Amino acid sequence: MAEKRVYFFGGGKAEGNAKMKELLGGKGANLAEMSRLAIPVPAGFTITTEVCTHFMKTKGKYPKGLREDVNNSLAKVEKIMASRFGDPKNPLLFSVRSGARVSMPGMMETILNIGLTKNTIPGLVKKTGNERFVYDAYRRLIMMYSDVVMEKAAGIEPREGMGIRHQLEKEMQKIKDEKGVTFDTELDANDLKKLVNIFKKKVKQVLKKDFPDNPHDQLWGAISAVFQSWNGKRAKAYRRIEGIPDDWGTAVNIQTMVFGNMGESSATGVAFTRDPATGKNIFYGEFLVNAQGEDVVAGIRTPQAINLVSKTDASKQLPSLEELMPKLYNQLARIRTRLEKHYRDMQDVEFTIQDDKLYMLQTRVGKRNGVAAIRMAVEMCEEGLISKKTAISRVRPAQLDELLHPMLDPKSETKAQKLAKGLPAGPGGGIGQVVFTADDAEGWAKKDKKVILVRDETSPEDVHGMKAAQAILTAKGGMTSHAALVARGWGKCCIVGCGDLNINATKKVLSVNGKQLKEGDWISLNGTKGIVYDGKISLLPAQPEKNVHYKKLMSWADQLRRLNIRTNADTPQDAKVARIFGAEGIGLTRTEHMFFGPDRITPMREMILAEDQASRKKALNKLLPLQRKDFIGIFKAMNGLPVTIRLLDPPLHEFLPHDKKSQAEMAKQMGVSAETIQAKVQALHELNPMLGHRGCRLGITYPEITAMQVRAIIEAACIVAKQQVKVYPEIMIPLIGTKAELENQRKIAVEIAKEVIRKTKVKVRYLVGTMIEIPRAAITADEIAEVAEFFSFGTNDLTQMTFGYSRDDAGKFLPDYLAQKILSAEPFQTLDQEGVGQLVEMGIKRGRSTRPNLKVGICGEHGGDPASIEFCHRVGMNYVSCSPFRVPIARLAAAQAAIR
Amino acid sequence: MAEKRVYFFGGGKAEGNAKMKELLGGKGANLAEMSRLAIPVPAGFTITTEVCTHFMKTKGKYPKGLREDVNNSLAKVEKIMASRFGDPKNPLLFSVRSGARVSMPGMMETILNIGLTKNTIPGLVKKTGNERFVYDAYRRLIMMYSDVVMEKAAGIEPREGMGIRHQLEKEMQKIKDEKGVTFDTELDANDLKKLVNIFKKKVKQVLKKDFPDNPHDQLWGAISAVFQSWNGKRAKAYRRIEGIPDDWGTAVNIQTMVFGNMGESSATGVAFTRDPATGKNIFYGEFLVNAQGEDVVAGIRTPQAINLVSKTDASKQLPSLEELMPKLYNQLARIRTRLEKHYRDMQDVEFTIQDDKLYMLQTRVGKRNGVAAIRMAVEMCEEGLISKKTAISRVRPAQLDELLHPMLDPKSETKAQKLAKGLPAGPGGGIGQVVFTADDAEGWAKKDKKVILVRDETSPEDVHGMKAAQAILTAKGGMTSHAALVARGWGKCCIVGCGDLNINATKKVLSVNGKQLKEGDWISLNGTKGIVYDGKISLLPAQPEKNVHYKKLMSWADQLRRLNIRTNADTPQDAKVARIFGAEGIGLTRTEHMFFGPDRITPMREMILAEDQASRKKALNKLLPLQRKDFIGIFKAMNGLPVTIRLLDPPLHEFLPHDKKSQAEMAKQMGVSAETIQAKVQALHELNPMLGHRGCRLGITYPEITAMQVRAIIEAACIVAKQQVKVYPEIMIPLIGTKAELENQRKIAVEIAKEVIRKTKVKVRYLVGTMIEIPRAAITADEIAEVAEFFSFGTNDLTQMTFGYSRDDAGKFLPDYLAQKILSAEPFQTLDQEGVGQLVEMGIKRGRSTRPNLKVGICGEHGGDPASIEFCHRVGMNYVSCSPFRVPIARLAAAQAAIR
Repeated sequence: MAEKRVYFFGGGKAEGNAKMKELLGGKGANLAEMSRLAIPVPAGFTITTEVCTHFMKTKGKYPKGLREDVNNSLAKVEKIMASRFGDPKNPLLFSVRSGARVSMPGMMETILNIGLTKNTIPGLVKKTGNERFVYDAYRRLIMMYSDVVMEKAAGIEPREGMGIRHQLEKEMQKIKDEKGVTFDTELDANDLKKLVNIFKKKVKQVLKKDFPDNPHDQLWGAISAVFQSWNGKRAKAYRRIEGIPDDWGTAVNIQTMVFGNMGESSATGVAFTRDPATGKNIFYGEFLVNAQGEDVVAGIRTPQAINLVSKTDASKQLPSLEELMPKLYNQLARIRTRLEKHYRDMQDVEFTIQDDKLYMLQTRVGKRNGVAAIRMAVEMCEEGLISKKTAISRVRPAQLDELLHPMLDPKSETKAQKLAKGLPAGPGGGIGQVVFTADDAEGWAKKDKKVILVRDETSPEDVHGMKAAQAILTAKGGMTSHAALVARGWGKCCIVGCGDLNINATKKVLSVNGKQLKEGDWISLNGTKGIVYDGKISLLPAQPEKNVHYKKLMSWADQLRRLNIRTNADTPQDAKVARIFGAEGIGLTRTEHMFFGPDRITPMREMILAEDQASRKKALNKLLPLQRKDFIGIFKAMNGLPVTIRLLDPPLHEFLPHDKKSQAEMAKQMGVSAETIQAKVQALHELNPMLGHRGCRLGITYPEITAMQVRAIIEAACIVAKQQVKVYPEIMIPLIGTKAELENQRKIAVEIAKEVIRKTKVKVRYLVGTMIEIPRAAITADEIAEVAEFFSFGTNDLTQMTFGYSRDDAGKFLPDYLAQKILSAEPFQTLDQEGVGQLVEMGIKRGRSTRPNLKVGICGEHGGDPASIEFCHRVGMNYVSCSPFRVPIARLAAAQAAIR
Repeated sequence: MAEKRVYFFGGGKAEGNAKMKELLGGKGANLAEMSRLAIPVPAGFTITTEVCTHFMKTKGKYPKGLREDVNNSLAKVEKIMASRFGDPKNPLLFSVRSGARVSMPGMMETILNIGLTKNTIPGLVKKTGNERFVYDAYRRLIMMYSDVVMEKAAGIEPREGMGIRHQLEKEMQKIKDEKGVTFDTELDANDLKKLVNIFKKKVKQVLKKDFPDNPHDQLWGAISAVFQSWNGKRAKAYRRIEGIPDDWGTAVNIQTMVFGNMGESSATGVAFTRDPATGKNIFYGEFLVNAQGEDVVAGIRTPQAINLVSKTDASKQLPSLEELMPKLYNQLARIRTRLEKHYRDMQDVEFTIQDDKLYMLQTRVGKRNGVAAIRMAVEMCEEGLISKKTAISRVRPAQLDELLHPMLDPKSETKAQKLAKGLPAGPGGGIGQVVFTADDAEGWAKKDKKVILVRDETSPEDVHGMKAAQAILTAKGGMTSHAALVARGWGKCCIVGCGDLNINATKKVLSVNGKQLKEGDWISLNGTKGIVYDGKISLLPAQPEKNVHYKKLMSWADQLRRLNIRTNADTPQDAKVARIFGAEGIGLTRTEHMFFGPDRITPMREMILAEDQASRKKALNKLLPLQRKDFIGIFKAMNGLPVTIRLLDPPLHEFLPHDKKSQAEMAKQMGVSAETIQAKVQALHELNPMLGHRGCRLGITYPEITAMQVRAIIEAACIVAKQQVKVYPEIMIPLIGTKAELENQRKIAVEIAKEVIRKTKVKVRYLVGTMIEIPRAAITADEIAEVAEFFSFGTNDLTQMTFGYSRDDAGKFLPDYLAQKILSAEPFQTLDQEGVGQLVEMGIKRGRSTRPNLKVGICGEHGGDPASIEFCHRVGMNYVSCSPFRVPIARLAAAQAAIR
């Protein structure tokens, strides 16, 4: 432990500073810093977190000499405040508060008014001339201290409802009842005098100890209790959730009490140095006259605005601080400027005015929403306060979501009735009428109705209804379920895995936590938080292109990042959206989605039912022109940019209907028996389809499928090239595990491509590469790179196989794993760098060992996750690819990665 | 290329030797070696494989000076044989044969009788006094040469049935028809004279070329044709299958012709220096008087035995060579001794006697069955011919199978009617009556009937019937299906994946390739080859313990190996069998099999249906004494040896019935509604159960399961320890992917163990370790080893996840992959060293980096595969664990690995 264990601050000086958060905690460090800046801070001192650690290790002991250190600092405080702790005439009172490195709001203890005793009370009464104020402070001290120090910190665990605080509150209620009043404030000085005596007796009776009447006993009791509260149940649970190490410890801040409730010349308030809701460079805050800090947030009295610009509908009739106390307001406004210049970020401050004197009690970096974060970052940069790099680092990538999606109006949201909570699969807000089938969704939407499609889970056959709906809500599935993937791709609001929903799709009703909803009822979804509301909430539209600050910030990000950002897009529409959002190519076009359209599913099924190669080829020939058309559209939309197309990936059974009714329909349509179809479905059935006959394994057993798809790609490329479109197709073979597989598929692709290019006489450059999504491919990447011109890490599958977790089934144990901290993050959302990441690194390193200029990207869900993007930057990928609506997020995250 | 391209041999001298197989091919090297040993070999010379490579590269050109080299060697042959090539009076004839490094039987070309021309024929007639013999040789030359040299090597591709050979055969048939005879031998000299003229005209007519009448033209034509046949279709296909590199090339052997068909003083035969069927040290062979080599194997004439001990039922009436030509037989017997002493291995030789003169035409290492291989190896070692290490290397581990399982009598097998072929899942032979259900199998077996259980596939509920059956036959499933795993564990004959079976279990009939079988019909199974026969074939019993040679060989292997050999055993019976076979511990006890017994399945199901922890614990408490009893039995059987017990691994749904009828029964038995059970089955349903809620994931969500199992293990250990049994339990946590998972489970295990040990006051040493079967576990093995006391590689699952192959489904594409050489071996049988093996190596290295004395083993199916065992030895494992019947195989393979 360092020699110095107690840090004094006050009177324009301080022993600590803002950089010493680890030792002094956030609060202590900033109090010291403000004092150094000659900002008026009630004097005090901070006991370091190291003392806390020592206290924990030794089970309640203090390091030698601490008492002397405290006494020395205390003397300094007394000097500055010109009053003395325990002095009968001019007593000093202290607050004792916790303060960890990072804020743990409400998790640890605070005790106020330390120093009030039989001896000091009369002096304070005389000094303030306010007997009621003093006895009210004393009864508060007894309530807090007996609860926190004498009961909790002493390890006493009372029966339910028998805690000392509760018992004292009952006594207070008794007196109010006797007097026939409702509010605490209606008790006068005499009532309170009587009450403190009753309190002290009760304390003695219940806790078998006298309430301490020595100020130093009170102080040390409070210090110990605050240290001990670091290991309280609430604090421990909070740390487990937030991942805060147990050995950090908390500091303890002992600070002179100042009172905003000493009359009409006193006040207390909170303020932000800029508007946290819009980011505007205005001073924004509220306050109350003759009040304590908790009154401002309690909502019983309407807080007043500190100035004109802060006035709201509620406060516009009330005078502002600027109007009431102009001198003090000006002092506060100067402090605002000073703090912002000094901290170079928006500050959230607390202040108290005691008898016409302004004190700053706290300053810290203020929380803000996304829109505000962007504006502040850009404007502060333009003001010369911060650099472009800092501006970019100030905005969390996820905060961009607010600009990219329509959002439920937060004000209406607080008033709405919450029905249930699910997983936030597609961000933004959505409102609509409940429908239960994809066909209904499409039908209602055609009649210009806004609908929300509610299902147990979705399948590729629901896509038309999902497209038509405003938002999607499912009872089952995780963050990478079908609904989640599709919705995210479209930037559509979506909540999945909402287990409280009880859906009866046949009867078109659902019940949720006791409430019944039927088809046509309105609900609203907050897809960013995963909350379902009853009824219709107003929606704020998304118009990022109109936000000049956003545009500026993104242009700075583009200058700074090294990673290219591509998009996953299966249609020309998606591709266009992504280009607007700044995509620099397509990293993944999934061709299988193209086979579900009504004009395609029939030849696709013919292909699957084919008994021999000849009839399979016949069916494929019907698909060829359709696929070619798809690719022409995408190539045109991506003129000048590379387009990676993945060949058929899912197992064939996904294209066949699984219920008897649909099978019968299909049989009728195709002129075969229902038994034929059932037999095929059964033949294609797999116990573990994820590890089954899919990806390149299909292309190897049915080379004609690969041939058709490559032909469609290259023919499309040649056609658009003739129309002066710059086209760079990249053919991607999925699920490669061995070099021999890729050689096999590459040979087919190259032969077909050469043939098409020779025939059409158009020179088209193309690449053939592979997904790296099987652990073995990463391990043998050196061999595979000998035949692959690019790698694209399919980290969804790679995560599945590296962990042995089925995405579809892991919902049974992943929540437990996250709750028990067996995993620190959902591995399908944030790349597991420790395990899966090692395979990715190995794959890149080995791949480039045999092909130094190997192009490497990622096209799993992780491509849009900021933490994963930083990893991709660090391991030297060329690009990340993500869904269109995450492109701006990825651009920002890539810039932040480059800065770090 | 080396300077020397032609190697002469003959007259007790040779320029090459037996070690030069790469240059001279196997045949050429051994001919040179025999000549050096002064064994009578018809003189000749070998053109090296390097010339072949040159010939291929230059598309048919010879290196400069080759012609002179050939002429020089030819002159030496002429000198030794005292006759000249092309000499009208005393002509020399040659055979021209291929000879690669390894034998490629029948894949390349041979031309005999080179040197017969208009000029030399009269001289040879005069010399032999046998005109018919000479013209017969000539017509053979024309047939072979025109086909191989003039047509095939010239690249002519005739229409079907229009090849020159076929046309010549038609001409010959015509003459036989005219004469009214059946056999070639019935044509006399005049007929043949006529025939050769017809032949020559036909050749000219079809191939537009005269048949060459210059002996040197004939010779060079033949040499080129043999070189070219290296790239013939058959040879290329064979090389692809056998993995022989294309650039090895073949040598060409030009050797003086000798004739065993020159009358009663001529003969030809084949012999083995020891009996290849029993391994006995006797000279064994057969021959024919006045015959050519092909007559001995053609089966038209009954071959005679070379001596008394070689006589069979068929040849016992015929005189032996020893009786007919005692002097020559003695010479041959001396050569036999000489060759064995020289080669130190059993030789397979060909010899020809021409006019009372013995010539050796070939010697090579003789093929032998398992019993013979063992006996020869042991006896040769005891005779001082070879070392123990060599003896051990001489026996292929798979050859031990013949001793360990009863086998179908090979003689009866050749006569039996083959019904179908499946995968050889459990080696050995089995005969019995067909039954279609496990209950029938058990019922019939109780009435002392031998049955074969025939099913589509088996499940854990069939185990009692599988046990009762002589053998198991399934229509579906692969080498690691349930039936295969269980059968191999028991050493029971089993064939799986026999797709030709069409089973109707309800009607108790099956059809297979047109044949109908009903319940009670007899069939016979060869589980080593996967063949199903109709009817009852006789069975040879397995009695390895009575085979002294086997016992001796195994004791030598045990002295030499470094790896320990453990067994996978789930019952005391299995454990006992494995101990007899030499197991040094149990590497895997699967506890889940223990839950299927009729007394266990009900409490197991109660546990699964339990809605809360309390009722789950209640059900587990019923299982506890049963599990404890299981472990007591196993510990006693393994007194003094370590026992690794894996905690519950499979997903819970495996313990519930999936058909409505069984569900109704279960509901009735347990007093719940059928809907409850259906709901549970549905709730437990998983899309990819292999990647689902199983292994330690169950133990983490239901810690009480882990607790119960550990309690049963440690209580059992304490009980047997009190009875003086030495017990070393090793608790193995399955499916670990992260260190935190293992910490969680280890904590439960250690707490319970401590509690039990404290209560019982018995000191039991135990270990807690983990399976490494998830790629992530191998990658993060350094962290996991911090909490694992041992690793056991579960390479079944590790292979599944590293390749992304579901064992249950890979049957859809793996056969294709093997046929197309995308994979060189079935990765679930032989460990994929290139991919999965890298993870294993990484796991061991990283694991020992944090725990240097980490004990490492393998318990997947690969633990019984010789190639994989060598890998395990090389990467430094401590032990391999395999099914009881593979323990001897593993012991031998481990010794061979240590020797290599």
